[in-house]
Amino acid sequence: MSLDPQRTLAELKELRSLTGDENGAQRVAFTETWSRAREWFLGLLEDLPVETHRDAAGNLWSTLRGESEHALLIGGHIDSVPNGGWLDGCLNLLTGVAILRRLVAEYDGCPPITIRLVDWADEEGARFGKSLFGSSACSGNLDIEEARGLIDRDGIPLPEALAACGLDLDAVLTSGRELTHAAAYIELHIEQGPVLLDLDLPLGAVLGTFGVERHAITFHGQAAHSGSTPMNRRRDALLAAGKMSADIYAIADRSGEGVCTIGSCTTTPGIVTSVVETCRITLDQRHLDAEKLSSMLIEARDASTRFAEEGGLTVDWERLWHIAPRPFHPELIDLCDEAILETCGVSHRLPSGPLHDAAEIAAAGVPTVMMFVQSLHGISHNKIEDTLEEHILQSVTAFDRLADKVLAWIRRQAATPL
Amino acid sequence: MSLDPQRTLAELKELRSLTGDENGAQRVAFTETWSRAREWFLGLLEDLPVETHRDAAGNLWSTLRGESEHALLIGGHIDSVPNGGWLDGCLNLLTGVAILRRLVAEYDGCPPITIRLVDWADEEGARFGKSLFGSSACSGNLDIEEARGLIDRDGIPLPEALAACGLDLDAVLTSGRELTHAAAYIELHIEQGPVLLDLDLPLGAVLGTFGVERHAITFHGQAAHSGSTPMNRRRDALLAAGKMSADIYAIADRSGEGVCTIGSCTTTPGIVTSVVETCRITLDQRHLDAEKLSSMLIEARDASTRFAEEGGLTVDWERLWHIAPRPFHPELIDLCDEAILETCGVSHRLPSGPLHDAAEIAAAGVPTVMMFVQSLHGISHNKIEDTLEEHILQSVTAFDRLADKVLAWIRRQAATPL
Repeated sequence: MSLDPQRTLAELKELRSLTGDENGAQRVAFTETWSRAREWFLGLLEDLPVETHRDAAGNLWSTLRGESEHALLIGGHIDSVPNGGWLDGCLNLLTGVAILRRLVAEYDGCPPITIRLVDWADEEGARFGKSLFGSSACSGNLDIEEARGLIDRDGIPLPEALAACGLDLDAVLTSGRELTHAAAYIELHIEQGPVLLDLDLPLGAVLGTFGVERHAITFHGQAAHSGSTPMNRRRDALLAAGKMSADIYAIADRSGEGVCTIGSCTTTPGIVTSVVETCRITLDQRHLDAEKLSSMLIEARDASTRFAEEGGLTVDWERLWHIAPRPFHPELIDLCDEAILETCGVSHRLPSGPLHDAAEIAAAGVPTVMMFVQSLHGISHNKIEDTLEEHILQSVTAFDRLADKVLAWIRRQAATPL
Repeated sequence: MSLDPQRTLAELKELRSLTGDENGAQRVAFTETWSRAREWFLGLLEDLPVETHRDAAGNLWSTLRGESEHALLIGGHIDSVPNGGWLDGCLNLLTGVAILRRLVAEYDGCPPITIRLVDWADEEGARFGKSLFGSSACSGNLDIEEARGLIDRDGIPLPEALAACGLDLDAVLTSGRELTHAAAYIELHIEQGPVLLDLDLPLGAVLGTFGVERHAITFHGQAAHSGSTPMNRRRDALLAAGKMSADIYAIADRSGEGVCTIGSCTTTPGIVTSVVETCRITLDQRHLDAEKLSSMLIEARDASTRFAEEGGLTVDWERLWHIAPRPFHPELIDLCDEAILETCGVSHRLPSGPLHDAAEIAAAGVPTVMMFVQSLHGISHNKIEDTLEEHILQSVTAFDRLADKVLAWIRRQAATPL
């Protein structure tokens, strides 16, 4: 049996009808609909010679044993946000099933190396606000004490929701043993942004996931009467924030491919008759290159200090969150590019703004790459998320080629011990 | 008895100790403390040959009849905001008492024209959120139906509070008859801003009160993921608002003496991981010149349209409030300047950002001028509001001179019928 992208497309539609409604996909992790989706998924594997088990973190592993225990990992996630898109996460997983089918047929049930398809648990973090649960448990990055304190909107603690699924929070890090023989990790995903759409390209090779620096910046000025205070006497906290809102575009531009976002602005006293005394903004900065991310942060700090001084203000910064860039493996990126070129005749390399399970596995030291397929509207986490069927079919074909190339790469690596 | 500024200073301190506490002045209109302040004030007039009555709007008139019924009005207000300053409003009133005493002595109880000292009711609007109650009733500008709907924070309607003071809302406009013979109106006030402080000047002649244009401006863009959306693909509503925050300084600068204030900024969705979709700011613009105020508004509208176009946004405006400029009488401004020069050797002309009762009386067609005395800190409506005693004494002297000059001006006017 050769690769059958049309079958994958049909299965994606079947999953949509089984677990979605008029508002979109409803496969939120640790819910009944999610369990039902997984049962349906396991049904797809019934006729294949794969061993299936769930690890200590709830990740579902389907292993096709090969001649070598060196393993190629293919990852995806069947969970979705509430009212989510039909492709986010499950395109990866069902393409993995298509690849397993093709390899079983091609190698008569025993490929040269082991192939493992993993359905990560709770990639989205929709219920408990903590994304990449299963993959970060597997990589060892999950903060168990932080996770212990998470509760959903009904007040149910995460440990209780895990227990209801037969999982013990204190044991989830033992999931890490699944990576013992991992030789490479590949993941297909919808882009969730507009880059490929703008370039009119179906597919792209992903360079890595952005590092993120997230801060709250507060400018402190002086409240003053809007009628009696001359303009040159004002210490206007909003003015400095306004200058920042423009300057982050210059900072991002100088950084090359970085992005900066001021997502919120609050003013005190915040009344029509007073100059703004205190203005708090949040700044989210992302870059694939750790040094450039650091430079963007320094530039933003310098700009805030300059604007504060210009306006007779003070400014303080509070770090809200940060994560290091997770660059993918250069040779695997080359292979991904080749697979796309061979499929579509044209390729593109781009960073990923959103995080993915692949970032966790890359951080664990497993050579990793992702492939992106174009998103219509540049939109995700929404029922209008969509991708052209032609592009879905191309993504299945190209990702299968990538699997083959990485399989060969792993064999070469194994034959050349460092 | 000649003018006694020291006595006025002593009386100001006595009023402070009678009606203030450690948080400042507590003479909120239509409260018990306010009534006590008025009783004390009437006590000051007991030995003078003045007739006192309260008009239909609660304004307290003290009339020293002169040879002519043409009247010079001197206005002030004994009410304060809660935790207010010790001079705001009552400096005017007690200086008026000092002038009455001096005129009674100088003219043996009957000056050439009638002199009327008025204590306006509820200048501050602290309890019901509507300032200039008594003077706008007198000028005819009070919107009775709007006033009927006002309630204080305890749910008490304004008409009920008026009734408790023996006043009938439906009759307050008859207060207008008090202006029948009004030939001029003068008012002394603390500046409540930093202009005279910055210039190191004790006193200034006020050109009029600013007109005000007050709008809410809303920019509409597109929410987008802070990680996956390239900078050049964003429709960032905050960016346009930020450009406005700087541009209003240029607009005010081009206008000459106008001021512009963005006092509040709210963002939607207002989360750290999304480009701002909707940003609403409030803009308060003030100018003494109606045409220039209008130009400032047009420039701000044009700027908002330009910034919206630059950012792929739409923008809409909502008018929140407006009032026309109230320029004072040119000849009276000259007289005020002269009185200050003769007292201090140096004067300055400046507009008033805040509104005052004088603005209402000017709008009613009575030739009007105000005199400002320097405010320390440029601060008012706060217990730290203060003015140097030396400047208080100079203000009493200069304002008394102004009264004399206006008295002579009224006589000249009466002798030269138009």
